[in-house]
Amino acid sequence: MNKKDNILIVGAGLCGSLLALRLAQRGHQITLVEKRPDLRKVTQDAGRSINLALSDRGLRGLRLAGVEEAAKKLCIPMNGRMIHDRENNTFLSKYSGRKNEFINSVSRPGLNMVLLDAAEALPNVKIIFNHGCETVDLPQASATFKNYETNEEVTLSGDILLGTDGAGSAVRQSMFMHKKFLFSFSQDWLTHGYKELEIPATNDGGYRTYKNALHIWPRGEDMLIALPNLDGSFTVTLFLPYKNSDYCFENLNTPERVTEYFQKEFPDALALMPNLAEEFFNNPTGPLGTVKCSPWSTYGKTLLLGDAAHAIVPFYGQGMNASFEDVVVFDEILDKYEAKKDEKTDWETVFSEYEANRKKDTDAIADLAVDNFHEMKEHTASPLFQKKRKLETAFEAEFPQEYYSKYSLVTFNEHISYEEALRKGRAQDKAILNLIDDGKLPESMPLQEKLKLVKRETKEIMHDDSVVKNLK
Amino acid sequence: MNKKDNILIVGAGLCGSLLALRLAQRGHQITLVEKRPDLRKVTQDAGRSINLALSDRGLRGLRLAGVEEAAKKLCIPMNGRMIHDRENNTFLSKYSGRKNEFINSVSRPGLNMVLLDAAEALPNVKIIFNHGCETVDLPQASATFKNYETNEEVTLSGDILLGTDGAGSAVRQSMFMHKKFLFSFSQDWLTHGYKELEIPATNDGGYRTYKNALHIWPRGEDMLIALPNLDGSFTVTLFLPYKNSDYCFENLNTPERVTEYFQKEFPDALALMPNLAEEFFNNPTGPLGTVKCSPWSTYGKTLLLGDAAHAIVPFYGQGMNASFEDVVVFDEILDKYEAKKDEKTDWETVFSEYEANRKKDTDAIADLAVDNFHEMKEHTASPLFQKKRKLETAFEAEFPQEYYSKYSLVTFNEHISYEEALRKGRAQDKAILNLIDDGKLPESMPLQEKLKLVKRETKEIMHDDSVVKNLK
Repeated sequence: MNKKDNILIVGAGLCGSLLALRLAQRGHQITLVEKRPDLRKVTQDAGRSINLALSDRGLRGLRLAGVEEAAKKLCIPMNGRMIHDRENNTFLSKYSGRKNEFINSVSRPGLNMVLLDAAEALPNVKIIFNHGCETVDLPQASATFKNYETNEEVTLSGDILLGTDGAGSAVRQSMFMHKKFLFSFSQDWLTHGYKELEIPATNDGGYRTYKNALHIWPRGEDMLIALPNLDGSFTVTLFLPYKNSDYCFENLNTPERVTEYFQKEFPDALALMPNLAEEFFNNPTGPLGTVKCSPWSTYGKTLLLGDAAHAIVPFYGQGMNASFEDVVVFDEILDKYEAKKDEKTDWETVFSEYEANRKKDTDAIADLAVDNFHEMKEHTASPLFQKKRKLETAFEAEFPQEYYSKYSLVTFNEHISYEEALRKGRAQDKAILNLIDDGKLPESMPLQEKLKLVKRETKEIMHDDSVVKNLK
Repeated sequence: MNKKDNILIVGAGLCGSLLALRLAQRGHQITLVEKRPDLRKVTQDAGRSINLALSDRGLRGLRLAGVEEAAKKLCIPMNGRMIHDRENNTFLSKYSGRKNEFINSVSRPGLNMVLLDAAEALPNVKIIFNHGCETVDLPQASATFKNYETNEEVTLSGDILLGTDGAGSAVRQSMFMHKKFLFSFSQDWLTHGYKELEIPATNDGGYRTYKNALHIWPRGEDMLIALPNLDGSFTVTLFLPYKNSDYCFENLNTPERVTEYFQKEFPDALALMPNLAEEFFNNPTGPLGTVKCSPWSTYGKTLLLGDAAHAIVPFYGQGMNASFEDVVVFDEILDKYEAKKDEKTDWETVFSEYEANRKKDTDAIADLAVDNFHEMKEHTASPLFQKKRKLETAFEAEFPQEYYSKYSLVTFNEHISYEEALRKGRAQDKAILNLIDDGKLPESMPLQEKLKLVKRETKEIMHDDSVVKNLK
């Protein structure tokens, strides 16, 4: 029997819960600490990312831990983007020309409960709620928590400490403040914030608009989206500049202004949102930020995973998926390096291999997500972009094994890394956009010819880029 | 007479001193506060960036304030890079094929003294040394300083506060900690650190190696450089990984190891450095970091300039030049917006126009400087890179009005912004490298033909990039 370790995991959100479950399945002794109350026992706050997009990379992580089927019961498939224009026209832009390539709307608390239940069912997992991490002793893999029920402080430690405490991570903060090594760090905020609203279910629990799509109202600078929930409602999210715009969070300050704005920009959505003004002023406005940092680990004792290591904006629907994929990659590294027999695991090597393997990919999905912010709010309405999407959908339908759009590479090809998806996907986009712009893909050209041309141009673009990067 | 303001400037380094001088010349009342002692009255620390590269953008700032001639007296022209290979061969790679395009080695404290003298000579400038900024009240444009001589605290304020307190800026730190707005921020450290060493003058005050060049010993991962000083010495800087390398700061821990390393990698330099081992262990090892942030200003009261707003790595020799150019750009914005007659200047507009105008350029030089780190240590030794440089030097000599390399665009073309230099320079590099790599520039081709081909390819690359960026 190998020597198993005591592992302290800080943060029992989606990433921390899956990680705890998986590491417990591997035989480690897990203490999982969460600052919030047990979400299985309290009612949820309104207005804070109620549903999320779950796709192939995330499902792979759930499968690894044996909870894929339980999660799928919470899923509503979304086959494409339902675009709503200002004149109340809609059209469905499919995510892929291939069948069976769709993403899922899933409840964040629902999925978290599945993971907590599965972890708690194992004898070697202990979960402690209502304990907020105050400070971390990085070299000792120990942390001091405040018990929010008694106000007492308690110090816990493990052989290692894993920080999965999200975008505002206290574990990462302690690395930032620690002055004994160089810590690269960035936080980048978009000029936009977000607010969650609702399209309620009909009186008999039905859906007020098409259920199996991610609805988008792109309006240049602003954007509204809606994802379906199991109870017939949709969670609606408004993305809007904080300031310096005709309509922005700063000046949407009366119910009349809010209604006027929706009437002008999103009239068909407004018709489905009876409680708009009330929700608008009750729900918080949240910021949209990207966090990157390095190193993720210190002293071979403490490691960041999930949003704590790489918070991204939500525009690729990959935040949760990237965090679940972290667990998959970490598990693969463990397969390779975990101690056999009676030796101690060399965690320092595991941590540095993990970062060496993973960071380029989480950097890539962070950049892709910011790209997609601009694509969703601006480009989905651009004629050139629409021609590109139409061509790509045709490629994927006619030549399903030969063409994968950037979106498909990222979302439906879990065996291609985010970094490769970014490199190849951006080159493809550039090739298609320029070929269309240069008039080199006339209507009359057979589709197969077009594909050949796009592939050749893509290859050239990638080659030209690589010459500059690999000068040696 | 306009209404002039009281301006509190925190930090009397190169940027703060020039800014104080220029704003005083415009009639404002300046209080300039510096945490260090007056460098005109103390001996200088060894081992901390003694000399710097001064080029066209920096000279323009000095000219604006009437101190260009005084500064030039401190300058030693450097016409190119003197490359030293492992076999003690040297060859001069000129910075430009045009005559009169050179950069200058200048003493940092010497130049700072010129600026302090000029500022102090004006009746409306008050300089306070030995006062370290502890906290800043951003909405009030006031700051609390500790008097290091008496340990007393003193609070100073102005109509506005300008933070020019360098890479570790206390003013910026107060923006980072202030929670009432979203502050985007990044600090990125290279895996390398630096250490300053010396090639002393000969006994009669002469130079031990060629005076008018920036000497480089590129060695793949490591690099040594040397810049001349007026007293016959050279300041030598070693750039080396902190760890995970056969030779790195972590394991160069005995005089024998240091000498062994120099003997192996830099034998001709070692022969000129009699005090190597002593200096190596006496002088500090410094980190190499890039800092970006936004917004630069808060409440229309407080603004960051220079390294405080955009610290960059030293590999383009543009740190000081970019800071001096900040003063030029700020002065231009003032020309446009500063109050005439008895009105108050609208500083909020000045600050936001300044950032809107300037930030894209300081972001660009930050990225160019990191690029050049890799170019200097790796590519200067690559055959493909050397062919490119040779071709570019020929273009610049034969067609001086038609071709400017990326280096020339950045260094010798002050009327082209850093952002444009980056965009055009990178496209040119990509065009030339790919044309050479594809065998499309054979020896037999006339130089004018080559230039035509490079220009056409560059234009295409820039066009293809712009199609992707301007989808609307």
